[in-house]
Amino acid sequence: MTSEPARAVPASFLPAGSTIGILGGGQLGRLLALAAAKLGMRTHIYCPDPDSPAFEVTPNKTIAAYDDKKALTAFARSVDIVTYEFENVPAATATLIADLVPLAPDARALAISQDRLQEKAFLQNARVAICPFAPVLNATDLKGAIKSIGLPAVLKTTRLGYDGKGQRIVKTREQAQHAFNELSRVPGEKPQMVLEAFVPFEKEISVIVARNHKEEIAVYDPAENIHLNHILHTSTLPARITPQTAHEATEIATRIAKSLNYCGVLGVEFFVSKRGQTQQLLVNEIAPRVHNSGHWTESVCPTSQFEQHIRAICNWPLGSTRRYADVVMENLVGETISTVPGSLSQNEQPNVYGKSKIRAGRKMGHINRILPPSG
Amino acid sequence: MTSEPARAVPASFLPAGSTIGILGGGQLGRLLALAAAKLGMRTHIYCPDPDSPAFEVTPNKTIAAYDDKKALTAFARSVDIVTYEFENVPAATATLIADLVPLAPDARALAISQDRLQEKAFLQNARVAICPFAPVLNATDLKGAIKSIGLPAVLKTTRLGYDGKGQRIVKTREQAQHAFNELSRVPGEKPQMVLEAFVPFEKEISVIVARNHKEEIAVYDPAENIHLNHILHTSTLPARITPQTAHEATEIATRIAKSLNYCGVLGVEFFVSKRGQTQQLLVNEIAPRVHNSGHWTESVCPTSQFEQHIRAICNWPLGSTRRYADVVMENLVGETISTVPGSLSQNEQPNVYGKSKIRAGRKMGHINRILPPSG
Repeated sequence: MTSEPARAVPASFLPAGSTIGILGGGQLGRLLALAAAKLGMRTHIYCPDPDSPAFEVTPNKTIAAYDDKKALTAFARSVDIVTYEFENVPAATATLIADLVPLAPDARALAISQDRLQEKAFLQNARVAICPFAPVLNATDLKGAIKSIGLPAVLKTTRLGYDGKGQRIVKTREQAQHAFNELSRVPGEKPQMVLEAFVPFEKEISVIVARNHKEEIAVYDPAENIHLNHILHTSTLPARITPQTAHEATEIATRIAKSLNYCGVLGVEFFVSKRGQTQQLLVNEIAPRVHNSGHWTESVCPTSQFEQHIRAICNWPLGSTRRYADVVMENLVGETISTVPGSLSQNEQPNVYGKSKIRAGRKMGHINRILPPSG
Repeated sequence: MTSEPARAVPASFLPAGSTIGILGGGQLGRLLALAAAKLGMRTHIYCPDPDSPAFEVTPNKTIAAYDDKKALTAFARSVDIVTYEFENVPAATATLIADLVPLAPDARALAISQDRLQEKAFLQNARVAICPFAPVLNATDLKGAIKSIGLPAVLKTTRLGYDGKGQRIVKTREQAQHAFNELSRVPGEKPQMVLEAFVPFEKEISVIVARNHKEEIAVYDPAENIHLNHILHTSTLPARITPQTAHEATEIATRIAKSLNYCGVLGVEFFVSKRGQTQQLLVNEIAPRVHNSGHWTESVCPTSQFEQHIRAICNWPLGSTRRYADVVMENLVGETISTVPGSLSQNEQPNVYGKSKIRAGRKMGHINRILPPSG
């Protein structure tokens, strides 16, 4: 650990023995810390929740709010680089940290991914196909948006949406108005929404891409994702898509990472819809972090997405994304965690997040079911 | 964590959220702790060295000597099970702990593996082929041993030998007497040695086997090992042995684990020598713990030896030992650690132990070089 003032992103690489600060103490922070340890890195977890699962895997923690300037300053000064497990790091927090120590992925990646309108503008600019959409800041906008986008559609808040929170499918004008009223109820904030065309997609896929400051890029195979109650249920490899679609998804994820001059692991979610005989890809959203739909990489790739993220932000050479086997990742949500270890078969790899309380809808762990070699 | 008194080995399984106490804070303790975290376990590291690398991967540590009864008692009472990273845990320490909390592998496995004479007696009893040997407690024994075993031979202390320490190859009576005098110089201890026949072996292999209290057994493919300066240099998969020899090595390792009523991961080292057209296996030694020659499992198996050990001692179902790819593990000893990350290629998976000081002959990390798929 060092207490030096602001530094630029390391020109060469961050050596083993350095300390990586991680904002967020949930399962992603925990799995990042475990991967960092494998590379000889120290970690320091910053999280307001005293019961954070990531606190169990390092001796270095700060329990403080994300707007606690004193705690953030001490944290930033005690580490060599800062990364995060969630994209809703407040802009002021990101700025404070980035003034003291390298932040990766950078503040621009954060700003773009935490605001749907900025994200869409960025994606359009990068010539990436997305759903038709219109911004909705007030009731008048809503009427115009319905006219241009049509119904059914999806009304979403521009910020703080995840796992289906902050969005409603609307089929009529009345439902749209009702959803607008409901989603507007954030005290002290002006409504900021977007109306997106409802895409009758055939399936959802995602691609995990990594990039370091040497501009090396590593891409994992596309995963096919199924959601239950707006929460990711399974990611299946290989995705049932054509080689052409897989190639395109890889190319788009690579283009996004390059356009952001990105450093770290990035998750890109796609809708796959049918256009005649071909599959069409639309980017749904991007996440500037390790991604739930990349948890399968732990069990069937030489380099997990967690290790890849640490390698990327430390500017180490990226590792192989070769996929050894077909696999289905299943999230263990709420009480389903109690199936571990009792019903595990030999080809099932469990990952338990160490959360002290089981709650309905809470991600408690996941299982990678590895398929036997074919033929 | 609990503070309950003595319990028997868990009848069913140790649930996630339990605390595993680990004696020893080196790289093996560190990698065990990381694997335990993946399964939702907490860990508590006990080690006398305040600078232990395993202290970096858990908030729970005890810095105390292995004969500090007060510290050992508090440690044992704060955890649900105790395991260890090295076989030289003093017998009194093991007994004290096992009276308070389950110890796995158990005290018998420890006693046998930390004394070459007990180990040889056990292996003979289990009908496992070993080198011809004779005990040497004094100069008269030495003469008799040379007569029965012949020269050249290897004189070894019965206890506390590792990485070539406590042993000498002797080619003449004079060398044997000199070696006996040298190895006798342990203050306050009677000389206890064994003279082993010098086996002109063709190669060395090892097998990592796991067993839980449900008597499930999982065996990894045999590794071919090359030593440099008595320290493991590389482990290569597959070993260049016949299918018959691989089968036999697996069978012997399984027999040893069963004979010990073993719980955990066990490393079994073999000499392979030629007898006419066939390969003959002799067991060199056994280690009741995760083993340096099993580090390759991290990169090319669904379940690493570290995860397997935690599963086994917690009585979870054992995981798949399927080997996805050919691989060479190379130890990074002393200054060679500085080749990471600079010279890493895409198929090289580094593991850095986070030791603060580089010393000649000190194991600092390892690399798994994964071979591309053939054909």
